[in-house]
Amino acid sequence: MAKGKVVLAYSGQISSEDLNDTDEGYEVVCCLANVGQEEDWDAVEKKALKIGATKMVIEDLQKEFVEKLCFRAVQCNAQYEGRYLLGTALARPVIARCLMRTAEREGCDFVSHGCTGKGNDQVRFELAAYAIKPSIKIIAPWRESRFFNRFKGRNDLLDYAAETGLPVTSTKAKPWSMDANLAHCSYEAGVLENEDQSPPEDMWTMTDDPQKAPNEPTDIVISFEKGIPTKLVTPQKTFTDSVQLFKELNQIGRVHGYDSPALSILRLAHLDLEGLTLDSQVRALRDQFITHNWSIQLYSGLYFAPERQFTEECLLISQANVNGEVRLRCYKGNVYILGRSSSSRLYSQEEASMDSLDDFNPEDTTGFIKIQSIRLKKDPDQWAK
Amino acid sequence: MAKGKVVLAYSGQISSEDLNDTDEGYEVVCCLANVGQEEDWDAVEKKALKIGATKMVIEDLQKEFVEKLCFRAVQCNAQYEGRYLLGTALARPVIARCLMRTAEREGCDFVSHGCTGKGNDQVRFELAAYAIKPSIKIIAPWRESRFFNRFKGRNDLLDYAAETGLPVTSTKAKPWSMDANLAHCSYEAGVLENEDQSPPEDMWTMTDDPQKAPNEPTDIVISFEKGIPTKLVTPQKTFTDSVQLFKELNQIGRVHGYDSPALSILRLAHLDLEGLTLDSQVRALRDQFITHNWSIQLYSGLYFAPERQFTEECLLISQANVNGEVRLRCYKGNVYILGRSSSSRLYSQEEASMDSLDDFNPEDTTGFIKIQSIRLKKDPDQWAK
Amino acid sequence: MAKGKVVLAYSGQISSEDLNDTDEGYEVVCCLANVGQEEDWDAVEKKALKIGATKMVIEDLQKEFVEKLCFRAVQCNAQYEGRYLLGTALARPVIARCLMRTAEREGCDFVSHGCTGKGNDQVRFELAAYAIKPSIKIIAPWRESRFFNRFKGRNDLLDYAAETGLPVTSTKAKPWSMDANLAHCSYEAGVLENEDQSPPEDMWTMTDDPQKAPNEPTDIVISFEKGIPTKLVTPQKTFTDSVQLFKELNQIGRVHGYDSPALSILRLAHLDLEGLTLDSQVRALRDQFITHNWSIQLYSGLYFAPERQFTEECLLISQANVNGEVRLRCYKGNVYILGRSSSSRLYSQEEASMDSLDDFNPEDTTGFIKIQSIRLKKDPDQWAK
Amino acid sequence: MAKGKVVLAYSGQISSEDLNDTDEGYEVVCCLANVGQEEDWDAVEKKALKIGATKMVIEDLQKEFVEKLCFRAVQCNAQYEGRYLLGTALARPVIARCLMRTAEREGCDFVSHGCTGKGNDQVRFELAAYAIKPSIKIIAPWRESRFFNRFKGRNDLLDYAAETGLPVTSTKAKPWSMDANLAHCSYEAGVLENEDQSPPEDMWTMTDDPQKAPNEPTDIVISFEKGIPTKLVTPQKTFTDSVQLFKELNQIGRVHGYDSPALSILRLAHLDLEGLTLDSQVRALRDQFITHNWSIQLYSGLYFAPERQFTEECLLISQANVNGEVRLRCYKGNVYILGRSSSSRLYSQEEASMDSLDDFNPEDTTGFIKIQSIRLKKDPDQWAK
Repeated sequence: MAKGKVVLAYSGQISSEDLNDTDEGYEVVCCLANVGQEEDWDAVEKKALKIGATKMVIEDLQKEFVEKLCFRAVQCNAQYEGRYLLGTALARPVIARCLMRTAEREGCDFVSHGCTGKGNDQVRFELAAYAIKPSIKIIAPWRESRFFNRFKGRNDLLDYAAETGLPVTSTKAKPWSMDANLAHCSYEAGVLENEDQSPPEDMWTMTDDPQKAPNEPTDIVISFEKGIPTKLVTPQKTFTDSVQLFKELNQIGRVHGYDSPALSILRLAHLDLEGLTLDSQVRALRDQFITHNWSIQLYSGLYFAPERQFTEECLLISQANVNGEVRLRCYKGNVYILGRSSSSRLYSQEEASMDSLDDFNPEDTTGFIKIQSIRLKKDPDQWAK
Repeated sequence: MAKGKVVLAYSGQISSEDLNDTDEGYEVVCCLANVGQEEDWDAVEKKALKIGATKMVIEDLQKEFVEKLCFRAVQCNAQYEGRYLLGTALARPVIARCLMRTAEREGCDFVSHGCTGKGNDQVRFELAAYAIKPSIKIIAPWRESRFFNRFKGRNDLLDYAAETGLPVTSTKAKPWSMDANLAHCSYEAGVLENEDQSPPEDMWTMTDDPQKAPNEPTDIVISFEKGIPTKLVTPQKTFTDSVQLFKELNQIGRVHGYDSPALSILRLAHLDLEGLTLDSQVRALRDQFITHNWSIQLYSGLYFAPERQFTEECLLISQANVNGEVRLRCYKGNVYILGRSSSSRLYSQEEASMDSLDDFNPEDTTGFIKIQSIRLKKDPDQWAK
Repeated sequence: MAKGKVVLAYSGQISSEDLNDTDEGYEVVCCLANVGQEEDWDAVEKKALKIGATKMVIEDLQKEFVEKLCFRAVQCNAQYEGRYLLGTALARPVIARCLMRTAEREGCDFVSHGCTGKGNDQVRFELAAYAIKPSIKIIAPWRESRFFNRFKGRNDLLDYAAETGLPVTSTKAKPWSMDANLAHCSYEAGVLENEDQSPPEDMWTMTDDPQKAPNEPTDIVISFEKGIPTKLVTPQKTFTDSVQLFKELNQIGRVHGYDSPALSILRLAHLDLEGLTLDSQVRALRDQFITHNWSIQLYSGLYFAPERQFTEECLLISQANVNGEVRLRCYKGNVYILGRSSSSRLYSQEEASMDSLDDFNPEDTTGFIKIQSIRLKKDPDQWAK
Repeated sequence: MAKGKVVLAYSGQISSEDLNDTDEGYEVVCCLANVGQEEDWDAVEKKALKIGATKMVIEDLQKEFVEKLCFRAVQCNAQYEGRYLLGTALARPVIARCLMRTAEREGCDFVSHGCTGKGNDQVRFELAAYAIKPSIKIIAPWRESRFFNRFKGRNDLLDYAAETGLPVTSTKAKPWSMDANLAHCSYEAGVLENEDQSPPEDMWTMTDDPQKAPNEPTDIVISFEKGIPTKLVTPQKTFTDSVQLFKELNQIGRVHGYDSPALSILRLAHLDLEGLTLDSQVRALRDQFITHNWSIQLYSGLYFAPERQFTEECLLISQANVNGEVRLRCYKGNVYILGRSSSSRLYSQEEASMDSLDDFNPEDTTGFIKIQSIRLKKDPDQWAK
């Protein structure tokens, strides 16, 4: 009789979970969320059943992923430590919710995943699991001594896979594990752990090598309602379905050499539209508190947490007015803004013009500056140097 | 007898100040700060004297500009509203200090500038002037009715220049005024006031049109000490002088199509080195508190203000450990990090490796996650949906 | 014929507005908001008409003041610079809205107020006036040279009042102007401008001198829903009407020697209830972002501003769970919490108890601490000293 | 032979550490930091040796505690969640450093403490221990199953103490454990875990019951240099020694019924002096970032952490100008500011006066307000309601 029933967060790659749980005498239900990665779904199912799973659950969560996570990141201009668009972190909540839904439906008391014992992903998955189903029990093989003493690292695992004939995508020459979804494709392990060594040229899959990008730009128009992308017009076609729109931007961006193509383009377009529609003081508050904190919350696996929910509700409030269109040129790894328009714009062209003085008395500025300067006149000696 | 002595913030361009003060009966000393703009300095002097100035003061402030302002912006990863690297705003404090120094030396009670009455630059100049020399009196022609009633806008001014034979760089077809310095080149007025119209192709001067960038990348190495760039190694040569280093990066970046070339490249290199050397919690505080506020302070003309000084001193504290080298590839409007190294790095490669478990017990992570999850288990129903 | 029609922000005190506008040939409508100050309303009206007003408008705005401003301050734990509960600033938006409503109804193109030219109140009133009615024209006598050259300060004004027989509450011996409302009573001018001199003992009106407070404490219970006070139970009676509840707390607090009695008591009770009902991370965000900024916005007269509206909507989100009762003891200038309870509490007594280990494994804490400590072990030498 | 050598964080109270380590076969060195608690030091030593310790180390750390922690908290206006002055948390770093110093000197590989498994103190001690001496091994009996299965809670421990004749201060009727130091005295456990029950009247030790406070106020003067208290003048005597000054304020405050008496009085005096000497914008930044974060860092046991060090160095920068004297009246649980003076004051009395217009043109304020209002005029309809 089985020790219990486990839902296993399954990937097509070789990893710990594939080896551990059936060995250990659990009944295993495999669960794989489709968040836009390229996968041979039939092969995945066969492999799962071959390893001993009693069932393979595959759910298409692309719409949830794009609308609830990726578009939220766009609304937020999310960025972690000034660089990272959170591609991996954004998919985790969607996958975790799928796992717990499966656990509930299949009557599993356990969830198992193959995240390594040093990374953030284990934290993201498990915090999510506990938040959604507090009674869940977690099996994390890479943190259990009987497992990590048997397999000291990926190399041992690859040896084991070779011996037992398990199909794997990693090799000793390219041992990195890959995390792909609609938002991006990231790598870890192997040569990538040496941050002074450049990525090998054959590692790009989602984007083309920017050196090979075409010499013709692509001009597009993106429409937003309340900060959410609602329409994409390309030279060929118009897209209004969220997933199609996102995939098309990936396609355009891939050709032009971006990392996280759709996210990058949408983020910049949104940023620019905010310049036209968001009050400067609201924006400063939003930048400092919402963008900053939401990015850290997602990175840290705190999606199913009161502070993320609070931050996101505040975000929505800030976006009521972020409506309009942005015209962009995509070219060789960069996005150039060609123009933008909005019926919710803050200032008319008339008001902003240097050449118009209607309803504005330039002499007022004199007072504005003088009153501001009172506070600054306290210590002239230090400034003259 | 003159009504008083004025130091005039002079530019090579046609603008208000050129026309007003001598007309009005002041003795005028022209002052022009060299912050790296391209200029025919002799022609500038001749024009100044022709208009009636009694003296033309030109100071080379490139070193002060690069070291005190641009490198500070790099240390800070400064960026305003997620896009703007503050190129114009960074030069203002240096120019203002030069003006006040000249006022002091030449015995001027007045300072005059040609900033328009709707922009930020008037605020930046005047707050600086009052802070450095509280007794200064300011003449801002564009805010005085006898001036702005005579010249309704740039077109009238251009007509006047044509009538009187004054040499100008703006024309009615290209009426924008240009602000150029080592950091960047920005434009305002004319067609640029319509934010739904794309910039004309012949407007690029500092960067080449990215579509024309070469197909070969340029690999470089930049060294930092305490967050300050100290060395640049290019395929051809090594630079350690701050101004030369900055200019060379402008040259490399211009070829590859960047806006604010040197600033952009240095900012990204610095950002990346911080990932290796700055504690994550210190970084989060620095991002939210220092980067955010310093950028706004500079944008708003609050350089000579206690809060900028305070913020900047806090910045310096955060940078004590930001030492090392970053290797980059510049290519078609983007910078790719190839590698980085530092003797102040936070983690050894050994510690970060997935394959090593020395001095780390993966089972501890179980407790770490469980304790964190206690707070998150309060409301499972809302998360399952 | 009148130069125009003015709505005049009227107070019972002697001040500039009383003297200027009718003199100047405007038709004047006086407007006085009842925000809970003690006033002889008939006398006020008589005085207004005597000075030459064509109409006297008095509106009872106590409910709006308590519910829209004071209770919002309580929800927010608002405090400016660690001390000031914003008593004066809270009333300004209510008064300004009343003035603009009157201007609209009476067809006034002008609004006039008697705020001095150095304080915050002029800024608060005028920003509010422009935001509500952008076309309004403002008459601020204390900023007009023909007025401030005639009356150099309060003393001149008091002389003038004496000459012309105007009734005033200020005297040369007690020349301070008083701003009283339901929230508090503040003073400015005279001896109070010397911050090294203690307030005179006969200046207390709203609170009794704390040295004279009774030796018996008063125990009360305050109920909150979504952070808003909804019920007060005193030893004598139960209050559910917002204005009555607020006034009763003023009465209790006055006896016990508080400044801003009702606000102080409600703020502390609310603060305490949040400890039981607000997630710690949400609270930290709320404190740093909402409490800090809302307090500054109100202080700075930015009530009718997008950033205040945004901040306040975020505040409301944070308060969904702040429900419950707080029992307090008021005694000699302090409030002591006796107990609190809530059906929305975060932790059960069972969970918090030191003596219970159900569903909690203390060994998890070991891992929690060890993982946290990894980041802290980088530089032991500096800490040992 | 002993299993190893342990330094034991010892208190006079009955607690876990007293029972465990010698039982378990370790050689035990007891260590007790004098941070101002009242203690019979000889009795403590005797008890330690009786239980089986080979050595008792007692260090007087009052000066370090007051100067490095308490005065820093005063400079910072530290407060956790709007109420708690961090009394317990402030002592932890000093005690932890003492423990690690003793471990180093005595050659101990282990440290043991008696903190319970649910509180913050275990986190504070252990993070500190690891940061100072990364190789240290920690014994936390309350988190070890063989211990917590034997003693289910304090009651079992008290039974055991009674059986074996160990002297204890807790009893079943008053089972709370007390944490006393110069800063404050806090309690936990027993009836105190029910937050809806009022504290028993006989629990006050450090402060007198405020109902019994004298009817005469005490007036004092406190001097600060760079935000640090340097002198206290009372009606009887002048204090300049940090520990004496702090103890005297405790004495004055205790009589008047405060919790954390010296900290409370110093914090309020400092807050008030900052109003006279700290630029308003620097202050806003300091409040939002330094005060907020330092308080949370100390509360969370992150004293020996890069972010605390960074925050504190920024704090010191902010205090350069906070010099002067504050005169206060202590009376019945409240502090009243009587006056303050400083040679570093920001504004002269002349400048602040309502009655003076030298070097200030009130008309400038008109422009100041008008320019500010431009941004606020965008949506009048919403504000009128």
